[in-house]
Amino acid sequence: MEDLIKRYLSGDRRALARFISYVEDEVEDVTKLLDKVYYRTGKAYRIGITGPPGAGKSTIVDQLTKLYRKHNKTVGIIAVDPTSPFTGGALLGDRIRMSDLATDPGVFIRSMATRGSLGGLAQRTHEVADILDAFGMDIVLFETVGVGQSELDVVEAADTTVVVLVPESGDSIQAMKAGLMEIADIFTINKSDREGADRVLVEIQYVLEFNEDSRPWKPTVIQTVANSGQGIEDLFQTLNEHLAFQERNHIRIEKQKKRITNYVRQIVKENILKEFWQHSQKEKLAYQIKQILDKKRSPYAVGRELISEFKNFVQS
Amino acid sequence: MEDLIKRYLSGDRRALARFISYVEDEVEDVTKLLDKVYYRTGKAYRIGITGPPGAGKSTIVDQLTKLYRKHNKTVGIIAVDPTSPFTGGALLGDRIRMSDLATDPGVFIRSMATRGSLGGLAQRTHEVADILDAFGMDIVLFETVGVGQSELDVVEAADTTVVVLVPESGDSIQAMKAGLMEIADIFTINKSDREGADRVLVEIQYVLEFNEDSRPWKPTVIQTVANSGQGIEDLFQTLNEHLAFQERNHIRIEKQKKRITNYVRQIVKENILKEFWQHSQKEKLAYQIKQILDKKRSPYAVGRELISEFKNFVQS
Repeated sequence: MEDLIKRYLSGDRRALARFISYVEDEVEDVTKLLDKVYYRTGKAYRIGITGPPGAGKSTIVDQLTKLYRKHNKTVGIIAVDPTSPFTGGALLGDRIRMSDLATDPGVFIRSMATRGSLGGLAQRTHEVADILDAFGMDIVLFETVGVGQSELDVVEAADTTVVVLVPESGDSIQAMKAGLMEIADIFTINKSDREGADRVLVEIQYVLEFNEDSRPWKPTVIQTVANSGQGIEDLFQTLNEHLAFQERNHIRIEKQKKRITNYVRQIVKENILKEFWQHSQKEKLAYQIKQILDKKRSPYAVGRELISEFKNFVQS
Repeated sequence: MEDLIKRYLSGDRRALARFISYVEDEVEDVTKLLDKVYYRTGKAYRIGITGPPGAGKSTIVDQLTKLYRKHNKTVGIIAVDPTSPFTGGALLGDRIRMSDLATDPGVFIRSMATRGSLGGLAQRTHEVADILDAFGMDIVLFETVGVGQSELDVVEAADTTVVVLVPESGDSIQAMKAGLMEIADIFTINKSDREGADRVLVEIQYVLEFNEDSRPWKPTVIQTVANSGQGIEDLFQTLNEHLAFQERNHIRIEKQKKRITNYVRQIVKENILKEFWQHSQKEKLAYQIKQILDKKRSPYAVGRELISEFKNFVQS
């Protein structure tokens, strides 16, 4: 592990990939490695890109990456799929398209999927972002499907959140507008050469107009056709503006503080629960579950008993 | 509270509504009430209905409820919106449509939204389902938007999970097929009078064909036009078949065992974390966060310190 860190710090991409795998697999003592590299983090600009499946997020990420490369920025991409361990493959499939990026030494792409752990995907994503940051990537892009809670946790790890919609999203905006308004710094209506793009634009702007949002930054709405690259320069400029705006107004540091607080809370949660279940006796738990099934005891009664047992264990 | 439980057990709907509010607001000692009613649960058939926004889930829930009512079954409906505390209002808006159900004493409808708690929505939903079950509802319907992790947690509380898609979902199936295949017992292609319904049907069946699924029940695919009621009888029949199948093959009890195990794990998690953060000192934490921000300490070092402080506290 000592050797791994040395190679990682010297810019070895294979060591970088291995380090990330250790985090994904929750290898013991990986937190000690994270400890060591933490002090080098804080330089990367973290951008979260989310939206419904099929909105063209991957293409936007590709195009944006190319533009950042033109400006000599290195880019780390984390493609997160919180829905299923299997769909990771689907994303990976998409990734084959951008082989020109895959061979660029200034770009590092990683797909991540849930592994049914203790809801630790947001945590893992955060850690991988730190690893890419400390490795020296100027930009870290998170790409994630959907707008559920776990996706929100993922994008909350970003300095700027881009929500990608398509003209067909019109129906859905009504249902999800408030949730999106809360998290989006930038809206991108992709595939906006299709019918309905202007209607969606107006709809979002209308909602933004009447949204009682106390946040100092008013979300920007952009139209793109990622396949042809149209509007990507706009998106790039708006990202720069948002970053500068946040730094000027000391918002970025506040976000980082919030992010670190959540990070620490997650670390505590994972570790205390790990300890808890390590010390619980499997056979006894099975018996308690059986009692609940048979309506002999309630789940809460068993929960209380487990906790008091844990406390007794800690005390001894 | 004693009085509330008495009224609840005697079938008072206002006491039922109050009880649910207590759970949502995480009122102290509400677990003691849950303890008391737990022994009456286990009779309701729990059906989870999920899918993308705009797929027509509410209309399906309405139509299905009417059919169950025709068969003299009482129905409790939990409309869950994990995305945002605000979109709860949107769902509620939809609900105005079905005022004929709202005045039916054999139907009870409740909207629930996240409140930024410790990811406790799945837990709350489970508890509300128990309350409706113990109240005597024959059927409990969960309706939830999206297919993210928190939505999956919600539907995992169900005996049967119905995934609602629309003909336009075609593009998305590629991306989400595996995740959906894992959770769906029944697929409903709603609005199937629209173009593309047969294509989506074939696509799903194709994926099911080649899906290496070890589950004994092979998901059924149904076409509906919920607005006109077309296909709802099919859905109703398939639900009955799935329930009977699970009981015949002792699958339902296995599911219940898994559900209860998760339930207990959640209870432990919530309670131990609550205790943990109650005993942590806010000023000290703020100072530690500052140290992390200044790169003087790592998040993991602080996490470890917090946990050892907690253990010391428990010991004293």
